[in-house]
Amino acid sequence: MKAILVSIGDELLIGQTINTNASWLGQQLSRLGISISKVLTISDDKDEILKTFKSTLSEAELVIVTGGLGPTKDDITKHTLCTFFDTELEINPQVLAHVKSFFEKRNRPMLEVNIQQAALPKKCTVLFNEQGTAPGMWFNENGKVLISLPGVPYEMKGIFNKEIVPRLSELFPLKELYYKTILTQGIGESYLADHMSEWENEIRAEGLGLAYLPSPGMVKLRISSSNGKIDDSKIENYFQRLTARFPQHVYGREEETLSEVVGRILHAKNSTVGTIESCTGGGLANSFVQIAGSSNYFKGGLLTYSNELKNKLALVPNALIANFGAVSQEVVESMALNGRKVLEVDYAVSVSGIAGPDGGTEEKPVGTVWIAVADQNGVISKCFHLGDQRERNLQMSVLSALNFLRCRLLEINLEKK
Amino acid sequence: MKAILVSIGDELLIGQTINTNASWLGQQLSRLGISISKVLTISDDKDEILKTFKSTLSEAELVIVTGGLGPTKDDITKHTLCTFFDTELEINPQVLAHVKSFFEKRNRPMLEVNIQQAALPKKCTVLFNEQGTAPGMWFNENGKVLISLPGVPYEMKGIFNKEIVPRLSELFPLKELYYKTILTQGIGESYLADHMSEWENEIRAEGLGLAYLPSPGMVKLRISSSNGKIDDSKIENYFQRLTARFPQHVYGREEETLSEVVGRILHAKNSTVGTIESCTGGGLANSFVQIAGSSNYFKGGLLTYSNELKNKLALVPNALIANFGAVSQEVVESMALNGRKVLEVDYAVSVSGIAGPDGGTEEKPVGTVWIAVADQNGVISKCFHLGDQRERNLQMSVLSALNFLRCRLLEINLEKK
Repeated sequence: MKAILVSIGDELLIGQTINTNASWLGQQLSRLGISISKVLTISDDKDEILKTFKSTLSEAELVIVTGGLGPTKDDITKHTLCTFFDTELEINPQVLAHVKSFFEKRNRPMLEVNIQQAALPKKCTVLFNEQGTAPGMWFNENGKVLISLPGVPYEMKGIFNKEIVPRLSELFPLKELYYKTILTQGIGESYLADHMSEWENEIRAEGLGLAYLPSPGMVKLRISSSNGKIDDSKIENYFQRLTARFPQHVYGREEETLSEVVGRILHAKNSTVGTIESCTGGGLANSFVQIAGSSNYFKGGLLTYSNELKNKLALVPNALIANFGAVSQEVVESMALNGRKVLEVDYAVSVSGIAGPDGGTEEKPVGTVWIAVADQNGVISKCFHLGDQRERNLQMSVLSALNFLRCRLLEINLEKK
Repeated sequence: MKAILVSIGDELLIGQTINTNASWLGQQLSRLGISISKVLTISDDKDEILKTFKSTLSEAELVIVTGGLGPTKDDITKHTLCTFFDTELEINPQVLAHVKSFFEKRNRPMLEVNIQQAALPKKCTVLFNEQGTAPGMWFNENGKVLISLPGVPYEMKGIFNKEIVPRLSELFPLKELYYKTILTQGIGESYLADHMSEWENEIRAEGLGLAYLPSPGMVKLRISSSNGKIDDSKIENYFQRLTARFPQHVYGREEETLSEVVGRILHAKNSTVGTIESCTGGGLANSFVQIAGSSNYFKGGLLTYSNELKNKLALVPNALIANFGAVSQEVVESMALNGRKVLEVDYAVSVSGIAGPDGGTEEKPVGTVWIAVADQNGVISKCFHLGDQRERNLQMSVLSALNFLRCRLLEINLEKK
């Protein structure tokens, strides 16, 4: 059972939009045991679309197409589907009623272009779109399935979960997961690979595959099985061994984010947290707030971007800033210790660093970031040496701070290196 | 001159990694006047890679391949390139010296796998990688160019800018931009399209194309030319007319972000800004901090996620919270007015809303967000009704707040609707 994903849209080709739909669908289909052999992005061009429908349906049993179903004139997928499947559009009364109520609810006028969203190819099964006005379409011909979905991510996801998963499960019996992932933070890909090299042979001897997936500050280890089955206890064994070897780096598995992991630990300890941020300017707090239910443990924070506010809000003595600089162990520890009292939280995390591109010196180059965690026992701190790119430094500072807090919460010994 | 992008990696197919490389390369190539006819993502499979090299080189003059050059054992692109171009690997002494110094600088041990990164196909032109250890490779055969680049985004970008752009410019003379973009916030795609419908015909009559690119809270209008030339004054005319019609929604053009636009206005006015955030928990502040040089106008903020901190940090009277609720005009205006004094800034922006999934009531459903801006003249506020999805609500709250501030800074009249 192979699937191909096709994304239609010039905006994808010219890079104005990042193709997150393909990665989301890739995740969902993998979980259902359906392997994706290819992802194709093509232009809003009728001939190109027709050619692609034909070639992909000859290579795969399932083709999922996203994009080109919006209300505006640049969207041509629906007409092209009619040509390809030799059918024509007709107004679907149920969809029309939904479109009408959609605009009524939002107190917005319904326009002629919106009525046309209820016009659908006669030959398809309509996949109802609760979140929007353009429904999905399911075509089944000669034992092959082609599904067309709107490109707006949350509409596409809604239709996929509600209308497509049950139909696919019926057509193709669900299989077990064929990959498992172990997540690490703060360790280099080749350093990790060197320590894993003996295991690699062991893993491969068991018929499993191993891949390293690096992203800024993180390396994911993906263990996969080519025959569609994987023994959970074997993965668990590798997970435990890796955790024992690198307790300060291995933080979770599968799709967990570091802030979810940290949030879960805080919740279990019934502890609260707050942030005192300089260079990350809310990025650390924001990583907590992204998680639903975070108000149980995340209380708030102080964004002390300027030196004046470091003193005024986080009560850092001006002399400390003058003597050691805003990016120093002394200042970051003071931010955490005083901030903890101001915010009245159990754990206070502070960050102060030089994100770049300016502000670096020979002694403290761009990428120098101090992080501290204060709790009832006092304060610990560490200096990180990141790179020379602002965006990356901000992102890695947040991850490093979350992992530093995680280690403190779990009482993992943090040797400096 | 057509180009095809090929991304190699199972992690892309199964959606563990989002393919941002393809969109970035799409942007860069479009700017150089090179049009991308297709983006392909394929598996780490030798046969599949060989087949794809062959088919893409028959369809396009330029093929850019990313991924599969890392130091670990799962990476096979380099060997496959040797097979395809009938050549073999040899150690490149210059690259080896660079790899050695790379590890020395970072005080990390160099491993055997890293030495192998200096082994490169004899037939290629080596594209030096300043940011990492895996260089790019440029193959030129039968008038077609195939370029292979590492998948790590900032390494790929570094090589592209430094090594590829000059070579491409030499091979294919640079052309003018073939698209222009007008950016809007807070207006629906179909509403905008309805108001644009007469212009659409005008635009098309001039031989230009028009596309609407919606993303949460935003619609980009892309005006494009199929013959590679575009008259700037015509676009400027549409931009001016659209701005006059929707001054509160049209905020910029091309690649500008709302926070860049707002930052530029603040900088020009020599004014400072601070944030007082509840539901967005640092997301608004973080959108300022992403911009290099933001410390000139962004001073800091108060993250008053809990009601206690709304009172303690932003000095919101407890009675106000008890009587009107934390998500109310009264509270959000108090946050902005008092926060402005605490932070000692010219403009204070406050946000308080119900992001979901819990916390909604009949009167104030999930998605209700109050935003206020205080300045020397007092305070203005507005209630936004967003959707029922947390992540989307947080994202749209930040954009709405930035645009609300932008309108205030430019003294654009904000009729409530």
